[in-house]
Amino acid sequence: MAPMNTLQPEQIEQILGQLKYDSDGLVAVVVQDIADNEVLMVAFADREALRRTLETGKTHFWSRSRKALWSKGETSGHVQHVREIRTDCDADCVLVKVEQAVGACHEGYRSCFFRQLRDGNWIITAEKVFDPTKVY
Amino acid sequence: MAPMNTLQPEQIEQILGQLKYDSDGLVAVVVQDIADNEVLMVAFADREALRRTLETGKTHFWSRSRKALWSKGETSGHVQHVREIRTDCDADCVLVKVEQAVGACHEGYRSCFFRQLRDGNWIITAEKVFDPTKVY
Repeated sequence: MAPMNTLQPEQIEQILGQLKYDSDGLVAVVVQDIADNEVLMVAFADREALRRTLETGKTHFWSRSRKALWSKGETSGHVQHVREIRTDCDADCVLVKVEQAVGACHEGYRSCFFRQLRDGNWIITAEKVFDPTKVY
Repeated sequence: MAPMNTLQPEQIEQILGQLKYDSDGLVAVVVQDIADNEVLMVAFADREALRRTLETGKTHFWSRSRKALWSKGETSGHVQHVREIRTDCDADCVLVKVEQAVGACHEGYRSCFFRQLRDGNWIITAEKVFDPTKVY
């Protein structure tokens, strides 16, 4: 697809208006690796976070716990370059396929979903790709 | 992994207690195709929906709009057989990899994410795999 930053402001507003936000003004966002379809993380975005994602071609989210806009990689440098954007049948969820720099998870893993349920226990099944104590 | 229904009730309660639910008592659930990692749908689950998913090995969710528990495939027969369950670093989101019967989307597509943003417009990029007027 064309780079996100070729969209005109009025196109961006139209796109944002076609999504359905929950009572908190948010949509769930699934971030998936464009190369192998691994789900890297799930976060939430409000209109402003989506607007900045469309404007810059890099993912932005809304932190429900900190009640603040954040840009993925702002601290770590592990940015997500947007390559594809999808929405679902209800238009209340967005799927973003990205090229992930280094790793998505603040705990040092490529994907935040590094724990798998096995025989009733959550087992870490991935290797760390960076040392979070040196990054955050 | 072992079939979900081999878990003991106390194991299931322990697993459910290790997840973090939002103020509505829900976690986001991403459902992914075990074969090709396509994201099929995103929904929400409360403890009871997750309990039934673990007990039966088939996905169950909580509908925020209908305020009701639902079982995927209860109307269509398009059930999702759970093959892998993951959670993320914050334990507030669950990733379920499944074998999907026919299609996940009530509009007739395999995935609910059948629309892609291209040049500022949401374009349908998938083919229908069933006729929803004959199923629902």
